Amino acid sequence: MLSLVDIRSRIEAGTLTPAGAIQLCREAIAARDPTVRALVSVLAEPVVSEAGPLAGIAVGVKDIIDTADLPTQMGSSIYAGWQPKGDAAVVMRLKALGAVALAKTTTSPFASIDPTGTTNPHDAGHTPGGSSAGSAAAVGAGMLPLALGTQTGGSVIRPASFCGVAAIKPSFRLLPTVGVKTFSWALDTLGLFGAGVRDVAHALALLADRPAIDLRDGEPGSPRIGLVLQDFAGAADRLAMEALDRARRAAESAGATVIDLALPDQLAQAWARHAIIQDFEGRQALAWEYANHREALTERVGRQLDAAQNLSAAQYDDARRHAHHARRALKDLFSDYDALLTYSAPGPAPQGLGSTGDPRFNRLWTLMGVPCVNVPVPGAGLPVGVQVIARFGDDGRALAAARLIEVALSRV
Amino acid sequence: MLSLVDIRSRIEAGTLTPAGAIQLCREAIAARDPTVRALVSVLAEPVVSEAGPLAGIAVGVKDIIDTADLPTQMGSSIYAGWQPKGDAAVVMRLKALGAVALAKTTTSPFASIDPTGTTNPHDAGHTPGGSSAGSAAAVGAGMLPLALGTQTGGSVIRPASFCGVAAIKPSFRLLPTVGVKTFSWALDTLGLFGAGVRDVAHALALLADRPAIDLRDGEPGSPRIGLVLQDFAGAADRLAMEALDRARRAAESAGATVIDLALPDQLAQAWARHAIIQDFEGRQALAWEYANHREALTERVGRQLDAAQNLSAAQYDDARRHAHHARRALKDLFSDYDALLTYSAPGPAPQGLGSTGDPRFNRLWTLMGVPCVNVPVPGAGLPVGVQVIARFGDDGRALAAARLIEVALSRV
Repeated sequence: MLSLVDIRSRIEAGTLTPAGAIQLCREAIAARDPTVRALVSVLAEPVVSEAGPLAGIAVGVKDIIDTADLPTQMGSSIYAGWQPKGDAAVVMRLKALGAVALAKTTTSPFASIDPTGTTNPHDAGHTPGGSSAGSAAAVGAGMLPLALGTQTGGSVIRPASFCGVAAIKPSFRLLPTVGVKTFSWALDTLGLFGAGVRDVAHALALLADRPAIDLRDGEPGSPRIGLVLQDFAGAADRLAMEALDRARRAAESAGATVIDLALPDQLAQAWARHAIIQDFEGRQALAWEYANHREALTERVGRQLDAAQNLSAAQYDDARRHAHHARRALKDLFSDYDALLTYSAPGPAPQGLGSTGDPRFNRLWTLMGVPCVNVPVPGAGLPVGVQVIARFGDDGRALAAARLIEVALSRV
Repeated sequence: MLSLVDIRSRIEAGTLTPAGAIQLCREAIAARDPTVRALVSVLAEPVVSEAGPLAGIAVGVKDIIDTADLPTQMGSSIYAGWQPKGDAAVVMRLKALGAVALAKTTTSPFASIDPTGTTNPHDAGHTPGGSSAGSAAAVGAGMLPLALGTQTGGSVIRPASFCGVAAIKPSFRLLPTVGVKTFSWALDTLGLFGAGVRDVAHALALLADRPAIDLRDGEPGSPRIGLVLQDFAGAADRLAMEALDRARRAAESAGATVIDLALPDQLAQAWARHAIIQDFEGRQALAWEYANHREALTERVGRQLDAAQNLSAAQYDDARRHAHHARRALKDLFSDYDALLTYSAPGPAPQGLGSTGDPRFNRLWTLMGVPCVNVPVPGAGLPVGVQVIARFGDDGRALAAARLIEVALSRV
């Protein structure tokens, strides 16, 4: 994979130019994308900035995020060729930092559950996950050092786990969603994919203009970590259980205290209501598409929105109350723990391209708005990751705990 | 003015058809808009629904709200002729209820502070206020029974006060802002203008699909109301003070208990930081326009965004913390009061069209996310209104208290 931090080090050392770094990506795309099919479009002649802390960094932008110089097609024929007027706020921020928004990446239609044509970079017979399929796969295939995704259920952390890349779904609204196609305004969260935890930490610190998020070398590492299985979401596969156990032992070997923890019942209650909030808002956000282009929606999105028409405001308000109570319970819980450690996905990427996998271990944390980091766990077969979670607004702590586990796993 | 409730009664009684009701608006527009200049565009051949609880209701849509069949120009030359692909979520909801989104209404560029060409329907030598200038003026001039505006500082309640119309800025995110041009995602709130409190209550109950918001006749009316002067925002003009006093006495005559109330200091602290949140987010939301079309911005918006470049994430985070503390203090305060009563604006509409007036009595409540209703106070000169406020999520209570005051004022 291409590491953002490594590329920037080479540029700062003068051994690589920004244009040369972009060219590396172009070559990797030419070699890998015919198989991986992660990209919807690539800028032919990008302006490459010589200055800025992300100069030379080519970024993949999920194709529900507006770009002024490439179409934004939402993964849907309804938006075939659609050219937004301006760039999304986060794309403007990337450009201001010197990065190049080089390519648009595949997305499930409207960032929902349908598969894309993208294949898993580790085995083309498996899904890369979704809905941020192209962004996870492009980084996993070594085509790009950074990519933007979004998560409403589990659309960042799950594909990161399947593709063996680091990713962060930051605290809710740390990155602005202006210019990002809405499915659920209470849930939609921009996230980042990178080769390792340092890479996404550095990118997030710059994008959010909060230097404290960045990892500091030599930081003392004895966090108190709660290990949670999310029983309410069902059991994980054996390989995911083994990965979680390896991550636990790695954390302990690095000085962390890991305690088995049962989550308070309010969290299970909120988890069970995630889809009500998502779909009640989704039916409003996609009302124009549903009323005018029902026949052009995929069967799954069509059925999802059909069912959503029956949700009542009372159900929605009740779900929001449960989420509110759960956020308070989680805040209390974090007074005893620096981070939580849990599954990123039920197992490795499922075989075939017919499904993007199951977001059941991700939904709660999206609803809670807390920062979540996927850490790949090295192993023999397809990638499996674990998820590190911190309190709302403490993205730096989630990343520090994730980095501790990542380093410890590399030593095992 | 055209009352939504009256029009619907006539349609339900069979003495007016939906098409006839739309025609009434067309005639009023032909008579009044050459002077008031509230409308940017009008649909030539709207589809008029025969069914639905808002059939026959012509609606004005602020021109920062996407419409699929009329351009959406943001009050800015940058968006001259810009045609969005779809309708905003709230426009789709209006259509689903049978209403006709008949006209786009003038807006300050990007819903900021510049004046539009619109005049006050009560005196063309005065401003109608802003930024929802056209929506307030169109209803005040009797051209439309319902109009949509947005408020980030005071862009619904202030023009409603200046134009002598009822309006509600509902609880934050009760109405979806999907498809509405963003200035500040933490503040931007859709609001409604109508002839009277019953009209906006009925429209909001339908739009939000929450029947409990609608006013019930014969509701017992002895609310406990706190009267607040918002000293931290400076003093109001004599005419605004007199209007507030008349509203107080009217409320008391109708059985309300009105208690003079000093707001806790946390609220003054939050008020002082409103602009930090607004402008820190505004610089991100308008980053594409600022970087690519700086010269086409108005002088005021250009200066506002210039200054915003210097705001730090630390200032923003501090402002959000203050807002969070203030929301808690306000929630506590509402355990003792059903509603608050305060100024809608510092006085009647200022003379001339060079300024849209001052939002200083509105900003706090936008930041708090609580429902605010403007009630016109009958008097001799230009209109003056008062503002009735309830706790977050209790829009029905704000409207009930506002209706009590409206009825009592009509009896004085």
